[in-house]
Order: sequence, then C-alpha cells, then structure tokens
Amino acid sequence: MKNEAITRMNDDFAKWYTDVCKKAELMDYSSLKGFIIYRPYGYAIWENIQNYLDKEFKKTGHTNVYMPMLIPESLLKKEADHVEGFAPECAVVTKGGTDNLEENLVIRPTSETLFCEHYSKIVNSYRDLPKLYNQWCSVVRWEKTTRPFLRGSEFLWQEGHTIHSTKEEAIEETLRMLDIYKATCKNLLALPMITGLKTEKEKFAGAEQTYTIEALMHDNKALQSGTSHYFGQGFAKAFDMKFLDKDNNWKYVYQTSWGVSTRLLGAIIMVHGDDNGLVLPPNVAPTQVIIIPIKQENETVQNKVNEIYNNLLNKNIRVAIDNSDKSPGWKFSEAEMRGIPLRIEIGPKDVENNTCVVAKRNDYTKITLDINNDLGDNISNLLKQIQDEMYNKALNHLNENTYNVDNYDDFKNIITNKGGFVKAPWCGDENCEVKIKEDTTATSRCINKEIQDKKCICCGKDAKYEVTFAKAY
Amino acid sequence: MKNEAITRMNDDFAKWYTDVCKKAELMDYSSLKGFIIYRPYGYAIWENIQNYLDKEFKKTGHTNVYMPMLIPESLLKKEADHVEGFAPECAVVTKGGTDNLEENLVIRPTSETLFCEHYSKIVNSYRDLPKLYNQWCSVVRWEKTTRPFLRGSEFLWQEGHTIHSTKEEAIEETLRMLDIYKATCKNLLALPMITGLKTEKEKFAGAEQTYTIEALMHDNKALQSGTSHYFGQGFAKAFDMKFLDKDNNWKYVYQTSWGVSTRLLGAIIMVHGDDNGLVLPPNVAPTQVIIIPIKQENETVQNKVNEIYNNLLNKNIRVAIDNSDKSPGWKFSEAEMRGIPLRIEIGPKDVENNTCVVAKRNDYTKITLDINNDLGDNISNLLKQIQDEMYNKALNHLNENTYNVDNYDDFKNIITNKGGFVKAPWCGDENCEVKIKEDTTATSRCINKEIQDKKCICCGKDAKYEVTFAKAY
Repeated sequence: MKNEAITRMNDDFAKWYTDVCKKAELMDYSSLKGFIIYRPYGYAIWENIQNYLDKEFKKTGHTNVYMPMLIPESLLKKEADHVEGFAPECAVVTKGGTDNLEENLVIRPTSETLFCEHYSKIVNSYRDLPKLYNQWCSVVRWEKTTRPFLRGSEFLWQEGHTIHSTKEEAIEETLRMLDIYKATCKNLLALPMITGLKTEKEKFAGAEQTYTIEALMHDNKALQSGTSHYFGQGFAKAFDMKFLDKDNNWKYVYQTSWGVSTRLLGAIIMVHGDDNGLVLPPNVAPTQVIIIPIKQENETVQNKVNEIYNNLLNKNIRVAIDNSDKSPGWKFSEAEMRGIPLRIEIGPKDVENNTCVVAKRNDYTKITLDINNDLGDNISNLLKQIQDEMYNKALNHLNENTYNVDNYDDFKNIITNKGGFVKAPWCGDENCEVKIKEDTTATSRCINKEIQDKKCICCGKDAKYEVTFAKAY
Repeated sequence: MKNEAITRMNDDFAKWYTDVCKKAELMDYSSLKGFIIYRPYGYAIWENIQNYLDKEFKKTGHTNVYMPMLIPESLLKKEADHVEGFAPECAVVTKGGTDNLEENLVIRPTSETLFCEHYSKIVNSYRDLPKLYNQWCSVVRWEKTTRPFLRGSEFLWQEGHTIHSTKEEAIEETLRMLDIYKATCKNLLALPMITGLKTEKEKFAGAEQTYTIEALMHDNKALQSGTSHYFGQGFAKAFDMKFLDKDNNWKYVYQTSWGVSTRLLGAIIMVHGDDNGLVLPPNVAPTQVIIIPIKQENETVQNKVNEIYNNLLNKNIRVAIDNSDKSPGWKFSEAEMRGIPLRIEIGPKDVENNTCVVAKRNDYTKITLDINNDLGDNISNLLKQIQDEMYNKALNHLNENTYNVDNYDDFKNIITNKGGFVKAPWCGDENCEVKIKEDTTATSRCINKEIQDKKCICCGKDAKYEVTFAKAY
C-alpha cells in the first residue's frame, strides 16, 4: 500500500510533511526563500475556506474592505507595543520608481494601524458604531526559518478589525469570532481545537487579551491556528479614535482584531495526512469523489462513468473523472496522494452487475454500491460519515494525548517522551514560563482557567492558572 | 433635484468624479499618496465583478493560484522589453527584518516573470499543456499622477497567465479572454466597449500583440478597461519554457496574459453617473432595491415594508430597508448618491391602497405597483429593463460620439472641440502617432482593421490601418 514517493511519517515527520506539500501539488517553492507558490490544488482548498468563512463573517454583519499594502514607518510607530513587536520582521520599501523615498514604507505585517487611521477619520458619533470590517490579503513578515504554510515570509490570511462603543460589545465580538473559528475548523476542516487566553508573554503586540485556537498535530506538537484579540482602548488613544456618545460626551472606542491564515492548510495536512499523502475532509475537498474507469476504452464503461458523474453532479457533489492515459493503479495512488475522500472504481464487470466499488480514503475500506439505487444519496451520506469519522479520530488523538500534571518531573517526562497537550498549574510569573521553555522547549499554548489550592510546577509557589503547555510549530 | 453635496459634472468633470468617489463612500484616501482605501461599498462592487469573472474563468477551464508578492530584480530583468517597461515604476524593497538585502526585490507590478519561472519548472511534456492559471491580487506601480480607481500606485486586479503547445491555441485564448471581458462589461456593467489591437507603441512591455477593450466616458475621453496579450515565444525563450512534443522534439511554449482591474469602477462611475451621484447597473449593484418607509414609526407601514422585503429576498433580489433616523428626503438623496437602481417608497396611504411607489435611479421615472400582484416578478423585470436601458444609453453615447475622418484638419477639430472616438487612416509609422499626440494629446486607442486606398491623416503617405484615436485617461 505504501506510496514510495514520500518519506514515511515515522521516519522523518518534517520530511514527510514537505513531501506531501510538494507531491500533492499544494505548493512549490519560488526562488525567494520563504515565499511559496500556492498551486491550483492548494489554492482551491484555501478558496473553500475563504468562501465558508466569508459567509460566516457576512452573516454576522461584517463587510469586506481593502487597505493599502504599504504602511509609512511613522504610522506603524504610533502604538508602542505594536511597533516593538513587528518592526524587527518588516520588509522595507526605500525606493519608489526612480526616487529614494523621503519616508520608508513597510509592507503590511498586519493592518491595525491602517484601520485605526481610517476609523479615526470616518467615525464621529455613536451612530457610526460598530464598524465591522474584514480584509482578505497577504501579509509579509521576514522570517529566518520557514516551512510551507506553517511559517512563511508571506502568507495569505483574513484580518478582521472592529470598533465598538462599549467594552462589553467588543469582548463579545472577540469571543464570537473565536467561536466562528472553532466551529469552522470542526465543520469544514474536521479539526478539533482547544481554546483559551494567551499569557502576557505570548499575546499579540498591542492587545490586552489574545484568545487562541490550538490544534494538536500527528507528531504531538501544537499548532496555533487562529487568534482573536481584544485591544481595549490602547490603539484608540494612540490614534485618537473618538466618538460623541448618546450622553454627549466624547469617548474612545473599544477595538478587536482576529485572523486565520493559510496555516490552516498545514493543520489539515498534519492532523489528517498519512503515509500515502494528504487526507482531505469532504467538506473542504476541491474534489470529493473521483471516478476511475477500469478499461476506460470500453464504451459501456464510459457511458456508465458519465451517468454516475452526472448523477453525482446533480446532488451538488464535487466530482471528477480521471480519463488520463495512466494505469488504474497509478490513478489510485494519485487520488490517494491528493487526499480525495472517495474513489469510485468501475469496470466492465461492475457495469454488468450495475454496481461500483467505492473506496474511502480515510480508512481504506471499500464498499460495493448499487448504481441504480439511490447512488447519489448514498455517496452524500458516505461523505458526511467520513467528515464525522475524521473529526472523531482527530478528537480521540487530541484527548488521548492530553495530560494533567502537578509536578515538574512528570511535566518534563511527558513533554520530552510523549509530547501532546500538558495541563499544569502555573503561578502567572513570566520567569517560570521562560524557564519551562528553556528546560523543555515547550511553551504555554493557552490559559484554561483560574485555579486555587495548587502549586506552580516550576517555582512551587501558589498557582493562579491552569495552563496548557506543548511543544509547538 | 440637484444634490448640492457634489460638484456639477459640467462645471468640473474631474472634481465631480472625485466627489462621487468620496460621497458615495466607494473609497477614501490613505495618508500615502496613490494608495486608496476600498470602502465597503466600493469593495462590494469589486466583489461582484470578481464573482462574475471568476465563474467565467472557471467555466473556460482556468484555475486560481497565488504567486509571491516580491520579485528578485534579476528575475524581472530576464526579458529585456519587460524590464524596460516596468523597472521605472517599481517599488523596491531593500531591507528585510534587520538586514539589508543582498539583492533588491520589487513589489510585483505584474507577475509574468513569476509565472514563467514556475512554468519552466513544472512543464515537461505536451501532456502538461495547456496551463490556464489566474491570480487575484494587488499590484504596485509607482505613479506620479494618481486618481481613484483610474490610476493608482496600488490597484486590485486579476492577471491570467497561460501557456500552450501551439501558436493557434494561444491566439485563440487571447481572443477568448478579450470576448469574456467585452461580454462581462456588457452583461454585468452595462458598458459598451470597442475592441482592437494596440499599436507597437502602446502595446504591453514584452507582448507581441495587445488587444484592448476601450470605453468612452461621459466627458468623451476614452478609458482602456482591460487588455489581453499574446506573447508568442519571447518569454518562453528568456525563461527556457520548453516541452517535449508528441513528435519527440523539444519546443518552446506559446504564452498569453490578460487582466482587468478596479479601473472598471472608474468606468462605471464615468459612463453611468450623473449630477446626483453614482448610477449602478442592477446586475453589479450591491443593493438593487432600497425600501424607504414614509412614517416608519407606523406599525402597519413597518409590517408592509417587511412583507415586501421578504417577498423580494425570495426572488433573489438584493434588497435593503433604510430604517435609520433620517428624513425620507435625506434617505432619497443618499440612495441616489449611492446609485441604487430602484427605490421603493411606502407610506400609510400606500398600505391602504396596497400599492407602492417605485422610483428608477437611471431616469428618475416613478411607477406605482400593486403590492399583492406579482410585485417580485415586476421588480425583477424592472431591474432587467434598467440594465438594458443603461447599456443602450451608453451605446448611443458611444455611437453618437464616434467619427470617421480622412484629413488632419477635421481630426484636430473634432478631437479638440468634441472629443469622442475618432477613426482615421494611419500609415503605421510611430512618428505619426507621436506627432498626433504632440499636436492634440490624442493617442491611438486601437487598430480597427487593415485598409487600402486611403492616406495617413498625418503624413499623407499610404495608410495601412484604420485606427481609433481619442484623448484618454
């Protein structure tokens, strides 16, 4: 069964990952380090994520806008924490046309400052609030170590930026978008996520609070998969974003931002993939069903293939036929590499019996179905079933690799030998967070809850929080 | 009737244009010259154009990809004509993170070179052809004089890049995409276009042939609204894009590229707009119908408004209700400024009579419709009618302002005093093209056809082509 074109997962997980990225034709490298090419198959997955999320955003009252790609350095510097966080990883434009620029411009690493400047111009009254904007674009952050989809100098994302007249409304928005991310990961990508607050050390540059969704990869490392930030009035004061409230007083707005990126493709690959390549959840798969004819030169086979194709198309199933001049075995491998959820095999004998063989990508089981008997509905149901099976399998993996510890020896033992999510009591002191990272390379992924009556695994003082730690991408 | 918030078209067309851009809230200026903000209403129009075109592209076998935003200077320099055309208007990145870069990078002004580099890696055999890729993105071209949507240092567009095994197929593709552009402008934007070949002087940097679609604005100036290029094998040779053909010989591919941009928003504004603001063709309008209640505090009015709203929504009409705390007259002005094709007014008397007043944005006529009698279908038909009326009005304007001349005096007289499209015989010599521009500021918009038995209006020698000239944006 093993596809020899890619490294085995257990032999070298990192190599397996990049093999899948390349061989499933999701991406290619460009000549510029850290800048990848999103090939048709990879981009089609991203388009499906975009379409799904965009509908969710619009249902909840958000509209899309587009802000400039370039930010004057003086604008980036207006909020102190923000510039400190992002300046070291900016790409800087110093020439425009034939002239050296009077002021350097950075390619947006994120667009808070641009939204703030615009909002400060267009908002005057409580009547103008809330503003619920989103932007689909690419951003640039100069990274030293890069990996396809996981960490790149350029990546595709959406960034939502909202402003509100009250703190409560802004916090509600922050949590609403976190919920939308979590539900999208489940319903579209079959990815279970844990959620919680980032520590002060790990939060976004300029935010008061950062909420995160975190997934657990097949190698038991965590992947931060999306974040939702509550900014309070920090940017509002730096950018003078004020409004005249109903009580006739000028007040600063409350702000949020939230984003997910093409990193989600990395999560899909590393949670669902196997030694034969990609395994795609049906709901996000560009092709859900591929029909592979056996003896494709046989006219009755072709007629039946076309009949099934049209049948499935009418059920709104994303279906394709592979009529290329390759052998059926080769086509099976390719369909597996590309993670297509269902493969229908049909040859002369099947036509005689009015049956077809349906192979499930996620667990390699095969089913024989009657072509004339509700085939479209049966295939639709199988796709739903696969989506559930994939989510449950990933959830089981997450649960089986989540641990509770109350002492540092156990913590170090599990982190080092098993990996996974390790929940542990923490005092809240950044020094302990730093020491844990130095000792084990694990980082705090999120704060789960406030606790009492426990001791910090690192310093032994009273613990304030239960935190999930993990090694992470 | 006149909305005093904007300059009259006849007083100052350029000021009228930017007034509409701002007051209809299509865009705003950022602090960086030439980089505009696409506000929700402007961006929603662009999204409708994107959705329509994207379906057309996919129907004709194209897939979307995403290439890096940055191009190493050495890559841009590989095709000589191309770099000569674009280098003077590039934004240049010289620093990444904390380091000065070893090689300067330019922000893509267009992505031919990136597609070529990728294609040269992934194409080996005739089986790999054609490749029909498209990309939605923004590009940067450093412009000295900028105007919203018409000419900006950054703009949004799509760029299709295809490679083929034969010249015939590549030329067919070039013309297919030109046709799609022309049909989209008609069917979606109610914009008539003339089409033809660009002269050598006006063609794209690196192309063998550039086809263009050209629209005529209200002020009788032309706007180049989209282009489709046939590259021959120029880039193929510079980038070594070869394939092993069926006859077992290595051959260079034949290439095309084609693009339209947010410039189309400028065309919509300047072809359809009037002294009260924007006038949107129904097929591209984000809101097709706005319902404005008279005495909105009246419960029976509100109930009827909601009934109509749901009725229209069920007919897939993009409908909105304006329940804001402004006066009906104010709301009428706003709806006009935003160019919403139909406005439904409904007050207590209308509810009694089971009628509503429907006002058409394009010609200010009002119709009284029965609410209980096929209202949805009647509104749908009205929207179709408006789309046709707007196209025909624009087509009449184009035809009425298209002239045939055979001598330079007539040419100069019409170009100077009337404007419009002026068709004239031309010898094919670039010197005449340059002189005509120097004398009149008019440029050749496109070659209409080859001709005989006529003399060039400029030099008097035998003419080879009939060319359409115009002053242009």
